Amino acid sequence: MKLGYATLDVDRRARTGDAEVVFGHGKTPEQVVGALRGLHAANPDGPVLATRVDEAGREHCRRNLPRAVIDDIGRTVVLGPPRPARGRVAVVSAGTCDLPVVRECATTIAVFGSAADQIVDVGVAGIHRLFDQLDRIKAADVVVVVAGMEAALPSVVGGLIGTPIVAVPTSVGYGWHLEGVTAWLAMVNTCAPGITTVNVDNGFGAGVAAARIARATARAAG
Amino acid sequence: MKLGYATLDVDRRARTGDAEVVFGHGKTPEQVVGALRGLHAANPDGPVLATRVDEAGREHCRRNLPRAVIDDIGRTVVLGPPRPARGRVAVVSAGTCDLPVVRECATTIAVFGSAADQIVDVGVAGIHRLFDQLDRIKAADVVVVVAGMEAALPSVVGGLIGTPIVAVPTSVGYGWHLEGVTAWLAMVNTCAPGITTVNVDNGFGAGVAAARIARATARAAG
Amino acid sequence: MKLGYATLDVDRRARTGDAEVVFGHGKTPEQVVGALRGLHAANPDGPVLATRVDEAGREHCRRNLPRAVIDDIGRTVVLGPPRPARGRVAVVSAGTCDLPVVRECATTIAVFGSAADQIVDVGVAGIHRLFDQLDRIKAADVVVVVAGMEAALPSVVGGLIGTPIVAVPTSVGYGWHLEGVTAWLAMVNTCAPGITTVNVDNGFGAGVAAARIARATARAAG
Amino acid sequence: MKLGYATLDVDRRARTGDAEVVFGHGKTPEQVVGALRGLHAANPDGPVLATRVDEAGREHCRRNLPRAVIDDIGRTVVLGPPRPARGRVAVVSAGTCDLPVVRECATTIAVFGSAADQIVDVGVAGIHRLFDQLDRIKAADVVVVVAGMEAALPSVVGGLIGTPIVAVPTSVGYGWHLEGVTAWLAMVNTCAPGITTVNVDNGFGAGVAAARIARATARAAG
Amino acid sequence: MKLGYATLDVDRRARTGDAEVVFGHGKTPEQVVGALRGLHAANPDGPVLATRVDEAGREHCRRNLPRAVIDDIGRTVVLGPPRPARGRVAVVSAGTCDLPVVRECATTIAVFGSAADQIVDVGVAGIHRLFDQLDRIKAADVVVVVAGMEAALPSVVGGLIGTPIVAVPTSVGYGWHLEGVTAWLAMVNTCAPGITTVNVDNGFGAGVAAARIARATARAAG
Amino acid sequence: MKLGYATLDVDRRARTGDAEVVFGHGKTPEQVVGALRGLHAANPDGPVLATRVDEAGREHCRRNLPRAVIDDIGRTVVLGPPRPARGRVAVVSAGTCDLPVVRECATTIAVFGSAADQIVDVGVAGIHRLFDQLDRIKAADVVVVVAGMEAALPSVVGGLIGTPIVAVPTSVGYGWHLEGVTAWLAMVNTCAPGITTVNVDNGFGAGVAAARIARATARAAG
Amino acid sequence: MKLGYATLDVDRRARTGDAEVVFGHGKTPEQVVGALRGLHAANPDGPVLATRVDEAGREHCRRNLPRAVIDDIGRTVVLGPPRPARGRVAVVSAGTCDLPVVRECATTIAVFGSAADQIVDVGVAGIHRLFDQLDRIKAADVVVVVAGMEAALPSVVGGLIGTPIVAVPTSVGYGWHLEGVTAWLAMVNTCAPGITTVNVDNGFGAGVAAARIARATARAAG
Amino acid sequence: MKLGYATLDVDRRARTGDAEVVFGHGKTPEQVVGALRGLHAANPDGPVLATRVDEAGREHCRRNLPRAVIDDIGRTVVLGPPRPARGRVAVVSAGTCDLPVVRECATTIAVFGSAADQIVDVGVAGIHRLFDQLDRIKAADVVVVVAGMEAALPSVVGGLIGTPIVAVPTSVGYGWHLEGVTAWLAMVNTCAPGITTVNVDNGFGAGVAAARIARATARAAG
Repeated sequence: MKLGYATLDVDRRARTGDAEVVFGHGKTPEQVVGALRGLHAANPDGPVLATRVDEAGREHCRRNLPRAVIDDIGRTVVLGPPRPARGRVAVVSAGTCDLPVVRECATTIAVFGSAADQIVDVGVAGIHRLFDQLDRIKAADVVVVVAGMEAALPSVVGGLIGTPIVAVPTSVGYGWHLEGVTAWLAMVNTCAPGITTVNVDNGFGAGVAAARIARATARAAG
Repeated sequence: MKLGYATLDVDRRARTGDAEVVFGHGKTPEQVVGALRGLHAANPDGPVLATRVDEAGREHCRRNLPRAVIDDIGRTVVLGPPRPARGRVAVVSAGTCDLPVVRECATTIAVFGSAADQIVDVGVAGIHRLFDQLDRIKAADVVVVVAGMEAALPSVVGGLIGTPIVAVPTSVGYGWHLEGVTAWLAMVNTCAPGITTVNVDNGFGAGVAAARIARATARAAG
Repeated sequence: MKLGYATLDVDRRARTGDAEVVFGHGKTPEQVVGALRGLHAANPDGPVLATRVDEAGREHCRRNLPRAVIDDIGRTVVLGPPRPARGRVAVVSAGTCDLPVVRECATTIAVFGSAADQIVDVGVAGIHRLFDQLDRIKAADVVVVVAGMEAALPSVVGGLIGTPIVAVPTSVGYGWHLEGVTAWLAMVNTCAPGITTVNVDNGFGAGVAAARIARATARAAG
Repeated sequence: MKLGYATLDVDRRARTGDAEVVFGHGKTPEQVVGALRGLHAANPDGPVLATRVDEAGREHCRRNLPRAVIDDIGRTVVLGPPRPARGRVAVVSAGTCDLPVVRECATTIAVFGSAADQIVDVGVAGIHRLFDQLDRIKAADVVVVVAGMEAALPSVVGGLIGTPIVAVPTSVGYGWHLEGVTAWLAMVNTCAPGITTVNVDNGFGAGVAAARIARATARAAG
Repeated sequence: MKLGYATLDVDRRARTGDAEVVFGHGKTPEQVVGALRGLHAANPDGPVLATRVDEAGREHCRRNLPRAVIDDIGRTVVLGPPRPARGRVAVVSAGTCDLPVVRECATTIAVFGSAADQIVDVGVAGIHRLFDQLDRIKAADVVVVVAGMEAALPSVVGGLIGTPIVAVPTSVGYGWHLEGVTAWLAMVNTCAPGITTVNVDNGFGAGVAAARIARATARAAG
Repeated sequence: MKLGYATLDVDRRARTGDAEVVFGHGKTPEQVVGALRGLHAANPDGPVLATRVDEAGREHCRRNLPRAVIDDIGRTVVLGPPRPARGRVAVVSAGTCDLPVVRECATTIAVFGSAADQIVDVGVAGIHRLFDQLDRIKAADVVVVVAGMEAALPSVVGGLIGTPIVAVPTSVGYGWHLEGVTAWLAMVNTCAPGITTVNVDNGFGAGVAAARIARATARAAG
Repeated sequence: MKLGYATLDVDRRARTGDAEVVFGHGKTPEQVVGALRGLHAANPDGPVLATRVDEAGREHCRRNLPRAVIDDIGRTVVLGPPRPARGRVAVVSAGTCDLPVVRECATTIAVFGSAADQIVDVGVAGIHRLFDQLDRIKAADVVVVVAGMEAALPSVVGGLIGTPIVAVPTSVGYGWHLEGVTAWLAMVNTCAPGITTVNVDNGFGAGVAAARIARATARAAG
Repeated sequence: MKLGYATLDVDRRARTGDAEVVFGHGKTPEQVVGALRGLHAANPDGPVLATRVDEAGREHCRRNLPRAVIDDIGRTVVLGPPRPARGRVAVVSAGTCDLPVVRECATTIAVFGSAADQIVDVGVAGIHRLFDQLDRIKAADVVVVVAGMEAALPSVVGGLIGTPIVAVPTSVGYGWHLEGVTAWLAMVNTCAPGITTVNVDNGFGAGVAAARIARATARAAG
């Protein structure tokens, strides 16, 4: 399928089980709307997703795609009917600054067919807040941990539970933190085994991975 | 439980579902054998694992732990009866140089309760070899992709299947490759969504993550 | 030849076979127009090229050099009659985001005396799109592969053909990608031998290199 | 005071309250012994310290300085009568691999006039072990936290107590950890305020800083 | 205590002796004012602090928190009655460019219960200026040294006094200085032992650490 | 074709025009000999190549493959009859230290079907030596420039000729040169357009690229 | 001497032979004018210099210091009578983009008491332009070479003359050049001995160093 | 002049005033002796120099070049009659660890025709030692400052004198110091203007630069 500026990969769903996604960064508002319409036409039964849509793009979607669900914090646009959720993902974050990444991740999880439970502001500097939420975290099929700065949270969570954990480093901090690379390095050097990571601020990637794991668990269970 | 030089975390199994593991790097042969014995005494019904055991350490295990299963390529030592396998993990690698990481990963998967199917030497420079193995890869619950150099394999695999994928960068290459960091950077920048990574050469970490996902799928299905 | 602010190297053509090029970055609109006129006067029989011309510079060229060919995507300005094309270069790209680099490269190829065949949006995450274009790629004398993110495309192409390949990394990506250096590292660590690279986003440099190779092939054949 | 190969700074004690220290790295065994003797002659009433003394140097000290106290793990040599301890420093570490740094730090604390309480193997992957030692940690005037890998421990400790904390990153880890820089980056990006750091593996520097703080507290209290 | 967008950690004071602080970076003016009010309500008897408050945030505080003390250079806002000062911290800086960091540090010291003595513009390029202030520096319980560029000042000060020193690197310089990392590297490689550091430009972190040490000294003395 | 430890890609020649090559790094002497025999059996009419063969490997080849041509400086082993040379490549180097890379490159060029003309020791610090060889350089179809340290040579050559140039950075130098990365950075930032590069010390990769270009030129001319 | 915001180091001239300089970066227009006036009052017989003065600062100087000499390209302001020139410095540059650095350097040389001869646009890609100016370059007491991109010029010049050379890397380039660090690395790895460098774009520092050398030569000669 | 493995640049003296130097790193003992003999034959009236000669090379020189002057600390070999010294260079160093660099520098200064005055162990941690030597430092025509770790010494010296200063960073330190790059970064970010630098541990390069400046001063004076 051709739009002039891009060949949409409309049979990706057949190959991987999921529709292609519009990566909004660097696209004009018109391109975002056009790409969403094209994907929606090819996947009318479920939601299609655009990520990293800037303010102008979201405004253009708001005017031209009245049925779209738009999240200004997570910078996502979703078009099409919701997908039934299989399995459950806890999205745990260390601070309010990480909220945009948490939201992008939660929306992605829903679009990719699972349920997201957001648990924010449970950082290690006040570790009792984490223990208060431990039962809720343990109840999930997969846990996504979003953390910036020194990113100690995934290690602490990983020492407490045996559920699969995906860690997302964020580019938040006070001084020199290499735009999130510090958090990333901490995560891949975690002393708690079995934690995997995605790129800095990549809530989308973590959401896809987590949803696939949660769906597999639930599909198997169902 | 105290050994003089370390406090063994013998109740980790209760918390996370898996026993602690002996990280052999920097330990004397006596410390490796002692730590394996201590963990085995606390977990007599299943296997306990030591990783990164150097030649002297493996030799000491061979003489003092006659029932241990020792892998000289993957540098692992396993003590105790095998664990029934739930779910199946395909461990795909791009070249024979990556074999030590593949083997460490496969052994870890078995110790953590899943089955590993090793598919080696299917790199992208001869991409038909990958297509020949595609059905076998698709049959797994999780796929671990081990790759060094430019690490293109995870992206190609990730465009073909929708199974959860864990990518392991390896420190193999011809010229300047930053001891595996090049592969790692490529993996976290993959254009195929839903791939997560672990640290360079960390077959162990990928094995734990993959086994947990595969077990969850199978437990649910069972 | 002196313009006050620069000594134009007007006999470069005698030495290297190609006229000097105006590097527009950091130059005022007046300087760009002045430099193009100076080079055109010294090379009236063929095209002269300015690259990295910003919006103001292109606007100034539009008003003052009515015969110039201006590309707003590739940010190039070409003045003077076209040059007959010898040989053919396929410019293959992994995504629509790479289009500015593809265009700068294609224009450069034409100015330097060869023909460019642009084949865009054939990334590895949907590898069938690449196979659909393989015959067209194989028909070229040289292949330029433009790719960002994990830059797996050159390795896959390099495993399929034996034609000379020049790879151009681009500074496009989702998370932390070091402004194109990730792609670059992947390309120089390719497992497919015989691929050479240029600097990040340097479509111009790749175009010059590719045109020279293609011309040599055709000149020899002719 | 001159030894031929170095001018000893024997009046440093008058200026800073502490004698100069012999940095053993790169010195011959003879130079280490000579420097210790020179410093001891100038400071006969208290201990003088050599750090980073390699095996040959320690052996030479053992034969030539029979009254010296030599630590093969911490690689230190101390000559002269002990100094009365004022104040108390808790030296907390995350794993047995960090022991050399812990020992270098503890010896330095004693030489610089305070008491060191070593609490090892309380890493965050089994966080209950930390809570078991919390009262002992809270009883100290200063806390030194020694940690490698992702170095989450200082943040967790820093969220629990208000005592001054000095964090020491160590060059221990499983995969790519930049020889301790990962731990260091995590520590300076801690979300728990008031933590300061020293260089990687610099148990000596942390020991001097901690002893000075503890001494000041105790001197004031006395 | 919940504000909708954040869980305030109001019992941090009980755990660590100090109230939580509002990190203004990335917060809206409304969020800064709301967070300050919430912390003030929970800690009415002393000052609460917001750092890194941008111009809009400070303006909003000026209108809505008329009793707040606002520092436009240090970018801090303080609400609530002052705290009696115990102990004294000298804040020494190498140049006027470092003033914002010096001010953030001095305000933090006051809020955390100690007295700050600011001694600015005593850099090593005119070292006599430092010697002129030496008695004043020696009179403090703790010394914070703030320095950018080559950051030689902490080493020089550290060779002259035995007081605990906390060094703060700043991101000031003429050419390539890695945004303060050069200063940081110099500080952790100081030849004067016993100096500890915080992150680049982190006057706040240095202030908390210094105040805790000075308070401990004075508490003990009292 | 299977050898137990590797699947040889024996039909690569059909796809790319060139046989697979044995990358000797990390292989045992037996594996090198076995791989060379396997490739030779599949490509009996031409030469097959092993690169980066260490001393033990070359010794094993010397004893077991008496017809092999072994180069101890370039660390290559070639088995099978020579290939007729089409086109000519000048391999220019800046210093005698670069000789191993020059030799690996020249051998590769021959195996891949072109002729190599080695011109060594023409660095820019005595630029007259370069001018003395300019006619010889101009006579080639392609020029490979091998240079370490500041790697100024490719820029100077590139300003003098219009032939395609492949530059190879080497890891040679006096002080801090980042193991060849300095040379590499200089090469990709060359002010002479049309130069492409390969990885540090990768004489093999440059040789493959250069031979393909030279062959194409000659094939076309023939 | 105190201005409120800075202690001017007015006796620096007695110590080093040169007056202090105003580093304009980060200073308000008022501070620049105030500092220049203060220095001028203390050094009425010669010129005083402000560097890195932004547009607003230069405008404020133009209105308030009518006798000041202001250079908008080099961003310098000079106040006070000129100083007699001793010795001569050639300032050689590789391209017009480097002009701001050349101008800052030339002005500094004059203020510090020597004569600057600017020779621009003699880069290595057209090396004949350099040879045309060689006699003029050889006539200087010191040579400053300003170059960006691959910075090959200092090595070529250094191989042709024996005069002291100071090299200044500039942050100019086409692709990834690390903001001048590539040029810097090339310069410190030069194969031509006896070249020293300053920081990226630091025309001022090179000017001070060059003027001092040229003055010493001339003072001695006189 | 040809030796088989290298073209000696015997007329460099005519161009630059100084003979070529043998860079011993990576050369066999036979190559070092052969190169020294060749240069000596071409420059019989003065000394020729080999640097970075390893132990085997120095031993071979000792046996085969009985008149050579060999320095085991500085790793230099000098052949031929001494050169009359013009001008005087002070070589100041911060610690005994820097001695090899100081010695390489001093020998180079002598070979290049000036006199070296070595002043070692005057680091900033005991700054009085520097002031004791200030008159001796001021008496030199040029000052070379050799320093590792935080490299504060050049800034302090540069604030006290107006003589040209060349700073040499060394790869000495306690923890993480990036093999001398920390010292280098500090030096190029010095707040004392007019200091230039060479590569890490490059005593040779500093020696050539300093000797040329000192000679020029003295030549002019004579």
